[in-house]
Amino acid sequence: MTENLNRSLVLVSRPEGLVGDDNFEVRSGPVPTPGPGEVLIRVTWLSFDPTQRGWLLPGGTYKAPLELGEVMQAYAVGQVVESNNSKFKPGVHVQGMLSWQDWHVSDGTDLTIVPEGVEPKAMLGVYGTTGLTAYFGLTDVGQPVAGETVVVSGAAGATGSVAGQIAKILGCQTIGVAGGSEKCSWLVERAGFDAAIDYKSQRVGSRLDELAPGGVDVFFDNVGGETLNSVLKRIRRHARIVLCGSISTGYVPGHLPPGPSNYFNLCLRSSRMQGFLLGDYRERFEEGRRTMRDWVEAGRIVYEEDIQEGLENAPKTLRRLFEGANLGKQLLKVADPPLAG
Amino acid sequence: MTENLNRSLVLVSRPEGLVGDDNFEVRSGPVPTPGPGEVLIRVTWLSFDPTQRGWLLPGGTYKAPLELGEVMQAYAVGQVVESNNSKFKPGVHVQGMLSWQDWHVSDGTDLTIVPEGVEPKAMLGVYGTTGLTAYFGLTDVGQPVAGETVVVSGAAGATGSVAGQIAKILGCQTIGVAGGSEKCSWLVERAGFDAAIDYKSQRVGSRLDELAPGGVDVFFDNVGGETLNSVLKRIRRHARIVLCGSISTGYVPGHLPPGPSNYFNLCLRSSRMQGFLLGDYRERFEEGRRTMRDWVEAGRIVYEEDIQEGLENAPKTLRRLFEGANLGKQLLKVADPPLAG
Repeated sequence: MTENLNRSLVLVSRPEGLVGDDNFEVRSGPVPTPGPGEVLIRVTWLSFDPTQRGWLLPGGTYKAPLELGEVMQAYAVGQVVESNNSKFKPGVHVQGMLSWQDWHVSDGTDLTIVPEGVEPKAMLGVYGTTGLTAYFGLTDVGQPVAGETVVVSGAAGATGSVAGQIAKILGCQTIGVAGGSEKCSWLVERAGFDAAIDYKSQRVGSRLDELAPGGVDVFFDNVGGETLNSVLKRIRRHARIVLCGSISTGYVPGHLPPGPSNYFNLCLRSSRMQGFLLGDYRERFEEGRRTMRDWVEAGRIVYEEDIQEGLENAPKTLRRLFEGANLGKQLLKVADPPLAG
Repeated sequence: MTENLNRSLVLVSRPEGLVGDDNFEVRSGPVPTPGPGEVLIRVTWLSFDPTQRGWLLPGGTYKAPLELGEVMQAYAVGQVVESNNSKFKPGVHVQGMLSWQDWHVSDGTDLTIVPEGVEPKAMLGVYGTTGLTAYFGLTDVGQPVAGETVVVSGAAGATGSVAGQIAKILGCQTIGVAGGSEKCSWLVERAGFDAAIDYKSQRVGSRLDELAPGGVDVFFDNVGGETLNSVLKRIRRHARIVLCGSISTGYVPGHLPPGPSNYFNLCLRSSRMQGFLLGDYRERFEEGRRTMRDWVEAGRIVYEEDIQEGLENAPKTLRRLFEGANLGKQLLKVADPPLAG
């Protein structure tokens, strides 16, 4: 059993396109011992986020790249099992930047204790990176106003689905773009979007012309590519494009497809396209989590989780994001928490 | 002589790419008579602005398109010769949206009287569309802060050269991108840019790496294309791209080249790309002109004019902008003012 053993997924070669199973090697070793001020965490749930693909690039992106021979990093939750840090008692669940392994030693930096009454894995989704990304990206960068038309791409994903529901709470007409009829039905029937466009079977541009003949005020973009270009063609004056993701590019800068040829509409329509990183809002995380929790507990925001199992399946689970296989937050269960409480 | 005759340049076919002489026809008729509330203006100087190419597109851009059979519009100055409007006395010089003809009748809407002590044609450049575009675009959209690095493309043009000089006044390191050694020398020796990059003989990207190894904070873009893409690759965190023009596309949406493949750096570096139209700032024109006048009269902003002559040469003068032929503001002299004073 893994209780006496620590398995680590180590980067042994850099992926060219999609992440392959063979880019990582499972290495086994003893469970590590926490040093002074450190805690030993049993990793229980891993989060999967498109941005992780960028961490594997040789030059890095907004953070230093993962080096060959290093254990893959990941947002995750786990339970503190041994602690030399008075802030974290054994038994508490914590969320933070952990790693693709059974056991993780941390000095406590950027570790958040999962609040009372919150399911730990929700700290990776609706109260974690994806929910907070949606919250800050939509409200602070997109700044939608009641009555405006908001379009979201990757709308059935963990971030997009929350962004669209927040837009709806704020009184906007909300249109989601997603792949496949199952996702599109979920958007309208469960998540309360006003409309959904299935990019696999419909033309995004002409559907937008029907659904939003006056044009688009806010576009929350997780995808890039042709969808971004179609929306840029249809922005209204003073529109705001929120750049959250570009999953269609696969996050591989060496192989970038052409950018949006309609970008100059930003000038002709006095509009802006703006990016952000979740880390920009570190000081407001508490506000974001509190607001999300109010909305979730009031039933105003719903979310789905796509749950995989087994640490060894981490690379293929990351791949699912780029294949559009997940509906909702992509998670992987590593283990049950070993301690009671 | 044209004193008893009015020549008008009328759009007879829409250009495909560059504007051709044969897209316009010179028609002659009697000098028009102003109606109640109207004034008759002798057009003296025409302004040429890249945005005029957009007015010739079938669908229009931010304003209604020029229809076939209509006289081409243009920012221009002229002298009021007859007036049925008490706001405009005969003899005053006015600036506004006039047209490619000898005589223009206006009801006074959006007509600005050239202030005492200002040379009328300066109202088309440094105190007109190009100077005000530079002023509002750089200060309000770009928001440069002393010590930052500002890059300007189309830097030897009427707008770019002013934008760069304002950046310098505000305490920024200022780098201009222009075509040819004559323009580049002018930028550094006369306009006080810290450095100039000749895109015709140098690689913009590697020169930027040398001149601004820390990256670019503000990019004032008149050009688009490869220059925009090279700068996007080198933006710093919280950079601002000001979309002012895209002269490299020729302003022909039907034939749009690919957009900037590095656009997603806006996300990775929490940056924005924002467009604007001069008309957004109508209520602040007086502030802009006053500030520009202070700077020009203090010798802090210099400007050049490229002067062509003869109304019949208007189409080929517009073409000069897209051929990169002009250094500074592109003007055409139509006539001397007929009245003294």
